[in-house]
Amino acid sequence: MIAMDEFSFIDTIKQSIYKQSTLLKGIGDDAAVFDSYEQEIVISKDMFVENVHFAKHTMKSYHIGYKALAANLSDMAAMGAKPAFYLVAISIPRDWEMTEVHSIFQGMRDLADLFNMDLIGGDTVSGKELVISITVIGYGEKDRIRYRSLAQKGDIVFVTGFLGDSQAGLYILNHPGNYKERSYFINKHQMPFPRVDFALGLESLLRVSLNDISDGIASEANEIAEASNVTLVLEEANIPVHPAFDQFNPKLQYNWKMFGGEDFELMGTVPKKDWDKLLLIAERNNVQVTPIGYVTSKQELGYVLIDNGSNKMERLDKTGYNHLSR
Amino acid sequence: MIAMDEFSFIDTIKQSIYKQSTLLKGIGDDAAVFDSYEQEIVISKDMFVENVHFAKHTMKSYHIGYKALAANLSDMAAMGAKPAFYLVAISIPRDWEMTEVHSIFQGMRDLADLFNMDLIGGDTVSGKELVISITVIGYGEKDRIRYRSLAQKGDIVFVTGFLGDSQAGLYILNHPGNYKERSYFINKHQMPFPRVDFALGLESLLRVSLNDISDGIASEANEIAEASNVTLVLEEANIPVHPAFDQFNPKLQYNWKMFGGEDFELMGTVPKKDWDKLLLIAERNNVQVTPIGYVTSKQELGYVLIDNGSNKMERLDKTGYNHLSR
Repeated sequence: MIAMDEFSFIDTIKQSIYKQSTLLKGIGDDAAVFDSYEQEIVISKDMFVENVHFAKHTMKSYHIGYKALAANLSDMAAMGAKPAFYLVAISIPRDWEMTEVHSIFQGMRDLADLFNMDLIGGDTVSGKELVISITVIGYGEKDRIRYRSLAQKGDIVFVTGFLGDSQAGLYILNHPGNYKERSYFINKHQMPFPRVDFALGLESLLRVSLNDISDGIASEANEIAEASNVTLVLEEANIPVHPAFDQFNPKLQYNWKMFGGEDFELMGTVPKKDWDKLLLIAERNNVQVTPIGYVTSKQELGYVLIDNGSNKMERLDKTGYNHLSR
Repeated sequence: MIAMDEFSFIDTIKQSIYKQSTLLKGIGDDAAVFDSYEQEIVISKDMFVENVHFAKHTMKSYHIGYKALAANLSDMAAMGAKPAFYLVAISIPRDWEMTEVHSIFQGMRDLADLFNMDLIGGDTVSGKELVISITVIGYGEKDRIRYRSLAQKGDIVFVTGFLGDSQAGLYILNHPGNYKERSYFINKHQMPFPRVDFALGLESLLRVSLNDISDGIASEANEIAEASNVTLVLEEANIPVHPAFDQFNPKLQYNWKMFGGEDFELMGTVPKKDWDKLLLIAERNNVQVTPIGYVTSKQELGYVLIDNGSNKMERLDKTGYNHLSR
């Protein structure tokens, strides 16, 4: 990075006006201070490293910032929490231009503004590779926090949107050629939209378990099942993919939709009696919701079983099949 | 780092029992959840990069973890907040051994345990250099948060402990030889103790401004003065140093005590009428407190003036002298 006083840099990214009424002190002291107005505080933290989580040839600086915050907002959505604040620590290599760094922060800010979020702290240091760590804070009502441990036998398993799009977009970026819906897939890789509004819209439902799909549905389904001590049965044919998804090699399609990750859609379970209400809430938020299976009592075969239509149930582990047919 | 499933690693650092009664969910969902019991939430976040903020030849893994958390606890102390939770994101190079990484977390945990803090989240990724980002969360009473903007004309300026010790310790580590109080100085560099107890002990005082000395007293004094729109007059002769500090070159001594940083002592201002009470609180906590100047109305010459005993007042900027004598 071009040599610059850290204090001057902070001045350039500091908001002139804070939006959250619970904030007592933002940037400019040893720490930020806020109130909770009797709500619960929900907090998560991620770290992203250049050439591990993103690469300059497939993501512009703006996208890098946007997506780093989007991943954290997706965690807020998966908890049913309303995002309010974020803190950013960033390690910047000397060869990054100041304009690129500002672009990273602009990508975050544009997304944050949609949710009236305030940037309230962080740290700026220099290093050999770009590393971004974001801490995001939201508020939730005590009995509406969407723990992954809340799935129960009889629930319907659902997902929002299409799965595998982010990986398809990355593939297109890395394999130039002619593709149908090229910009759609690339956009899903560079600027996935976190399902915060849909998750908050669920507040009239008493019990919903939720996970966001950051590591692929196989991984997320296992986390819900383990935490709830139940088995999730998924029907492969029902896992929703974009109509233009079939242009890719079937093996890639399968890997992307099951293990792809970074779609930042939500998966969850809801009691059968609330299914119609869930569909209404989805419609109101212009989000597609698809039933992909059901919850049953914990099976010996495993936490997640997949029905691939060939009269066999197979165990689906976090990272791939275990071929224990029955 | 030795290849290891991220999930297994998290299991090894996850606490089996959480101590904070306000915690609803620690590690193991999309985010952590806690309550505030009507207190204010104080949050800060730092980032540390290998060979920028620490080096393996002067710090063991244990010290690296300890000091990263200590720096954040020092921010809590400087706000008058009681630390409660921390989140750790870490980027680990492939050549670090698993035992070293555990040692980093052990250094944090040993310090955290003293304050009953819980590790409630974070992220583990791989990268080219070791990068640690810590988010720390504490609680404060609304009218006892020690903002740096609270200094007023007539206040006494004070610091805890001795200044410059951390830099002296680093110098000893980098320049082998015979030194008086060698292990004392090295310990102050590797394991500085944050002044949390002293800061919390000040609760009976209505108004105190505080900063922790992370960047050197010159920088911290300017921050208090600017935020409060006053001028701080410091008396150089009164700035407290360890009795064995005089073994070093006078120029080094001066730079270390004024600009050295990382001592993680506190500096602040307090009304004159509360001075005796402050001394009592210091005594109770076995912390030395030294008056080093006073607060006056904002002077044209600058935010911080230093009286070096030669009948001249000089302006002291964040990073060094500006020779505007009068």
